[in-house]
Amino acid sequence: MENSFGKLFTITSFGESHGRCVGVIIDGCPAGLPLTEDDVQKEVDKRRPQTAAVSTSRTEEDKVEILSGIFNGFTTGAPLSLLIWNKDIDSSEYQKTRHLLRPGHADYTAFIKYGGFNDFRGGGRFSGRITATFVMAGAVARKLLNLIDVEVLAHTIEIGGVKAQPKPPDDVRKNVDQNPLRCADPEAAREMLQVIEQARDEGDSVGGIIEGMAFNIPVGLGEPVFDTLEGDLAKALFAIPAVKGIEFGSGFSAAQKRGSENNDPFIIKNGKIVTTTNNAGGILGGISNGMPIVVRVAVKPTPSIASRQQTVNIEKMESASLEVRGRHDACIVPRAVPVVESMMAVTLCDFAIRAGIIPEVIK
Amino acid sequence: MENSFGKLFTITSFGESHGRCVGVIIDGCPAGLPLTEDDVQKEVDKRRPQTAAVSTSRTEEDKVEILSGIFNGFTTGAPLSLLIWNKDIDSSEYQKTRHLLRPGHADYTAFIKYGGFNDFRGGGRFSGRITATFVMAGAVARKLLNLIDVEVLAHTIEIGGVKAQPKPPDDVRKNVDQNPLRCADPEAAREMLQVIEQARDEGDSVGGIIEGMAFNIPVGLGEPVFDTLEGDLAKALFAIPAVKGIEFGSGFSAAQKRGSENNDPFIIKNGKIVTTTNNAGGILGGISNGMPIVVRVAVKPTPSIASRQQTVNIEKMESASLEVRGRHDACIVPRAVPVVESMMAVTLCDFAIRAGIIPEVIK
Amino acid sequence: MENSFGKLFTITSFGESHGRCVGVIIDGCPAGLPLTEDDVQKEVDKRRPQTAAVSTSRTEEDKVEILSGIFNGFTTGAPLSLLIWNKDIDSSEYQKTRHLLRPGHADYTAFIKYGGFNDFRGGGRFSGRITATFVMAGAVARKLLNLIDVEVLAHTIEIGGVKAQPKPPDDVRKNVDQNPLRCADPEAAREMLQVIEQARDEGDSVGGIIEGMAFNIPVGLGEPVFDTLEGDLAKALFAIPAVKGIEFGSGFSAAQKRGSENNDPFIIKNGKIVTTTNNAGGILGGISNGMPIVVRVAVKPTPSIASRQQTVNIEKMESASLEVRGRHDACIVPRAVPVVESMMAVTLCDFAIRAGIIPEVIK
Amino acid sequence: MENSFGKLFTITSFGESHGRCVGVIIDGCPAGLPLTEDDVQKEVDKRRPQTAAVSTSRTEEDKVEILSGIFNGFTTGAPLSLLIWNKDIDSSEYQKTRHLLRPGHADYTAFIKYGGFNDFRGGGRFSGRITATFVMAGAVARKLLNLIDVEVLAHTIEIGGVKAQPKPPDDVRKNVDQNPLRCADPEAAREMLQVIEQARDEGDSVGGIIEGMAFNIPVGLGEPVFDTLEGDLAKALFAIPAVKGIEFGSGFSAAQKRGSENNDPFIIKNGKIVTTTNNAGGILGGISNGMPIVVRVAVKPTPSIASRQQTVNIEKMESASLEVRGRHDACIVPRAVPVVESMMAVTLCDFAIRAGIIPEVIK
Repeated sequence: MENSFGKLFTITSFGESHGRCVGVIIDGCPAGLPLTEDDVQKEVDKRRPQTAAVSTSRTEEDKVEILSGIFNGFTTGAPLSLLIWNKDIDSSEYQKTRHLLRPGHADYTAFIKYGGFNDFRGGGRFSGRITATFVMAGAVARKLLNLIDVEVLAHTIEIGGVKAQPKPPDDVRKNVDQNPLRCADPEAAREMLQVIEQARDEGDSVGGIIEGMAFNIPVGLGEPVFDTLEGDLAKALFAIPAVKGIEFGSGFSAAQKRGSENNDPFIIKNGKIVTTTNNAGGILGGISNGMPIVVRVAVKPTPSIASRQQTVNIEKMESASLEVRGRHDACIVPRAVPVVESMMAVTLCDFAIRAGIIPEVIK
Repeated sequence: MENSFGKLFTITSFGESHGRCVGVIIDGCPAGLPLTEDDVQKEVDKRRPQTAAVSTSRTEEDKVEILSGIFNGFTTGAPLSLLIWNKDIDSSEYQKTRHLLRPGHADYTAFIKYGGFNDFRGGGRFSGRITATFVMAGAVARKLLNLIDVEVLAHTIEIGGVKAQPKPPDDVRKNVDQNPLRCADPEAAREMLQVIEQARDEGDSVGGIIEGMAFNIPVGLGEPVFDTLEGDLAKALFAIPAVKGIEFGSGFSAAQKRGSENNDPFIIKNGKIVTTTNNAGGILGGISNGMPIVVRVAVKPTPSIASRQQTVNIEKMESASLEVRGRHDACIVPRAVPVVESMMAVTLCDFAIRAGIIPEVIK
Repeated sequence: MENSFGKLFTITSFGESHGRCVGVIIDGCPAGLPLTEDDVQKEVDKRRPQTAAVSTSRTEEDKVEILSGIFNGFTTGAPLSLLIWNKDIDSSEYQKTRHLLRPGHADYTAFIKYGGFNDFRGGGRFSGRITATFVMAGAVARKLLNLIDVEVLAHTIEIGGVKAQPKPPDDVRKNVDQNPLRCADPEAAREMLQVIEQARDEGDSVGGIIEGMAFNIPVGLGEPVFDTLEGDLAKALFAIPAVKGIEFGSGFSAAQKRGSENNDPFIIKNGKIVTTTNNAGGILGGISNGMPIVVRVAVKPTPSIASRQQTVNIEKMESASLEVRGRHDACIVPRAVPVVESMMAVTLCDFAIRAGIIPEVIK
Repeated sequence: MENSFGKLFTITSFGESHGRCVGVIIDGCPAGLPLTEDDVQKEVDKRRPQTAAVSTSRTEEDKVEILSGIFNGFTTGAPLSLLIWNKDIDSSEYQKTRHLLRPGHADYTAFIKYGGFNDFRGGGRFSGRITATFVMAGAVARKLLNLIDVEVLAHTIEIGGVKAQPKPPDDVRKNVDQNPLRCADPEAAREMLQVIEQARDEGDSVGGIIEGMAFNIPVGLGEPVFDTLEGDLAKALFAIPAVKGIEFGSGFSAAQKRGSENNDPFIIKNGKIVTTTNNAGGILGGISNGMPIVVRVAVKPTPSIASRQQTVNIEKMESASLEVRGRHDACIVPRAVPVVESMMAVTLCDFAIRAGIIPEVIK
């Protein structure tokens, strides 16, 4: 396992879905940042399901505790440790079906890799619950990015085939928290909700696409040739369970564009060099160019579905069928929106520290 | 800059497009691998343009030299250093236009990040030529993967809007080297060639999509939650200039699928657990599941185009226009195919060593 | 700050002396290791002062809790998190004297480095208490090393100028826990105790030397030229507060030896290649040679002393004097013995995993 | 193998003693540093033996070439690659005695670790020649440290039991290059020379101690708890073949001191906080305190001696005897002095960049 990410701002995730807790260590957070448990709680709360229609997940309140790294309300330069105790856990269903490999889940790969010793309850380390640790780290990263006026913003742009109309950033900012879908297009949001409810009623699930943006990025973040901004953002985002595709700017559609169309012309605006379009998604040569970073993330439909599925009993090595019971989201896309924001924030924060833009001590 | 990739099988790239050489250090290659310069040369030659129609690039022969790490024809466990001397370089055009930021290139971001000290000639470190260092490393990685029967195979599946018909792996293997497009569908290849020629004639360029596959992958590669197989493959592939999107298995199309449709059912076949479909692209929970790894990579159209483009003179801080002269590929997709293979091989090799599947000494 | 150590077996330390807890995350522990809190508690208890004569430290019981990474009594391959809650803490003295830089401590350097935001209470991150996190990690490392029959053993060989007579390993093993000094020479131990008591009575402190040994080491651990066995062991041991010198085998005395005297002749014994002497301390070229690893660690006298010392009030920037009050060990050497063992175990375990000698899954 | 060192200023060493070359890649060197091959050559020349009396080593001139990373006389931010081609190599003696394990060398450990595939000629990767790559990296690091007025200075303080009189830094600076021993005490130097000549005449060798100092160090370098200044300096210095001990400040002698004696009192001098003594060797809590860094390095006697030694023929697995022929230094201490300086410079430079004291671009 490799549960750390980031070179100078390094997060280390630990904990399991049905274990005692989930938590994260943040090493390399500059000293002098004002930080309270509430700062982090606020972000973690965004991960909670907004409506029973979308999600039937645990209703437990995830209460954040900071165990180290703060003193008198400020970060100290020592590692921050943040933790959420697990509650409200019934693992009996997982015990009963433990040898039935859930399709689309890590049951099989984890079983083989860890010799059957992995904690399978609720998916263990592979549970969506682990993303709470990403969000805790993201909350700290966002506070640091605030210091240099960088804003990270994600929203749902597609669910179950329903696409949101493109909206200008201001509308996204305003609308994203207005509906449980975290979609800036209210009309599309309504349709998405119907699609999700229908899938759920049919014992099925749907996927979607999240767009992440970052504004006011200084020019020069990214450390090519390997630690490119795209590369490290992608690595960070692929750590979110269910993400199966990533694209920046014009992304896959660039494959169908001409160079003359896809190149972003440079102009001078208010004394600054900007591009008139942003097909690059704010990144040229793996380095931020000052335009908004734009990334889109494909989220597969929740693999846990109520419908009967074909699978294998790995103990008996024989065919079997499985109905996944318990509380599962028919669509995890809305809950993944703050997670996308968090992993973007963590990555950008690390690059900003590497570039010396966020200093070792906040004054 | 951060020019190293890989945890135990670590490659470090160096050199510039118009400098003295491009090269790569490979640290962590097991001892006892038979290796000659020809083994590497063979792979590097694949990067050369196959036809003037596709590319008008330097015609120089890239001759690989191994400077360290082999003895009596075998790797020694010491770092391998491989190098190609640069030749046939005329940098005068770059000198003349050095303050004109080429749209779609790293000129602007590199200028700011490195304070104007970057070697801008031919794009310097941001040139496609740097991928020759990836291919040298990939050649070694592939020899190591051969030992455990892993095969990496990439091919062009779309160029300038022309999509290849899906072909079974055997056809891809057979056809990929039969045309300069590295496209397994000969008919599509012919169309692609026309599209490229037309773009070139119009002073323009086109992009495309490459599919990479890896066969016979052992179950268990990948180190979640952060060093996932998807995450590290994506990071490796985003190091290739012009790549702007990555997806695994059903990828972005998963966003439109139901869970019942996207989940790959498990069955037992010849005593082994396999899935009947491969929407996961061979990866579950960030870990290989034994099915073929399938990744698709979006390549933007070559930013160097002959048509006049709007830009900025960064020295004078004023608007300007630019026609990029010199030798440029109207489509780099075919030449990127072996680079995709190489970065996949490097990543998979690193994970195989981490998992102990390729040992420290080859016997 | 950089609070992680180890490449594949990676420990991340967190917590402060007077904060809520001290803890450690262990990432890369193979799955399948039987592990209980008692296994770790046993080692942590060794860090407790053995007698009031040597130490007047907190009498609190350090109770180890494992928060993640085990399931049904075995490690799962997921990160282990181990934690000790702090109790019995009175920080008032530190508050009062917070601007008086304690000589020999990190007060000044930490104040400057962290801009005055560091948690100064009890030394914060620089407290000897942090070594409890090393011992927790060491306990797990030792269980892993047990699997390959590697034994790590440390003992006090000098305190306050009193040198122990060299003893054969069997005597060390037998005697080390027989006295509170952890000294295998009972006579010297008695003298050491007197020296410590005298220093304590005079408001002063003494230092000493610890010898660490590791037996049954496989040939081949160490990854030169930079990740040498000496280099990484030294780095690990210098993380222990108060350590100011490290030597291997004949160490500093080698400077006075002839080559003919210092070289260890090779012979064959029971079909194995061994050396007749061990001036190399078990390491040649940075790689273990199968002989016992022998390292000696110089521990400075405890900087916290009751006598009045000259210092500076950093707030007022004026001269001041200071008597350090509170509970302090007049000699920390005996308590550092298990810490030396722990950091040796952590380092050797990491190298054994890197060399593939301890596999990813314990069977 | 792990041939990279440094977190942000990362050096990667490659090459073998009798291979084609030795070289180093420096990644993370800020852009804008004026750098010529002469800058580096000057330092590399210091590694050459100063007199046949001390050394009978290869007389070849080591000519430094910079292959990448500079443009118009300045560093570009891209990786620097520096290389010395090997010449004047006769490997026949090594071929003849290849199965005779040279005592005190890495022959045995490398043979086992690399399965006999290691390049044994001249010690291969384990040769002192590899330190030329350290010195090339050190030359660049020193130029960077110059920018912040940090000076690194090493000198011989003991050889073959002959101890130099302690000298103030000014005398060291002045005298160190006045004799081939690099000893600031001319009288001791003469004695050392005799001791070396005598050892050589008797087919033997001697070791010694080097003291390294660094002046004008900013307060705050070092990243505890693991990346301490002591720990990383030690790791860097143990990469130098033959180094078997390291101590900082009062070092091993601290074990015999009282706390009241070893603690360095703080005072204010010229408005700055300093200590009246420097038993800490400039490091408190693993962080620089602004006082000179003082480290002493024990160098074992050259293992290559002309006298007959007992050993093992590893092919035949039988006892054997060996006289090591060829050119060998009877004492490598003087030649190791610039290597100690170099590894100190590399380490300090990395920490200065991590602390943001040396920026990404030199202006």
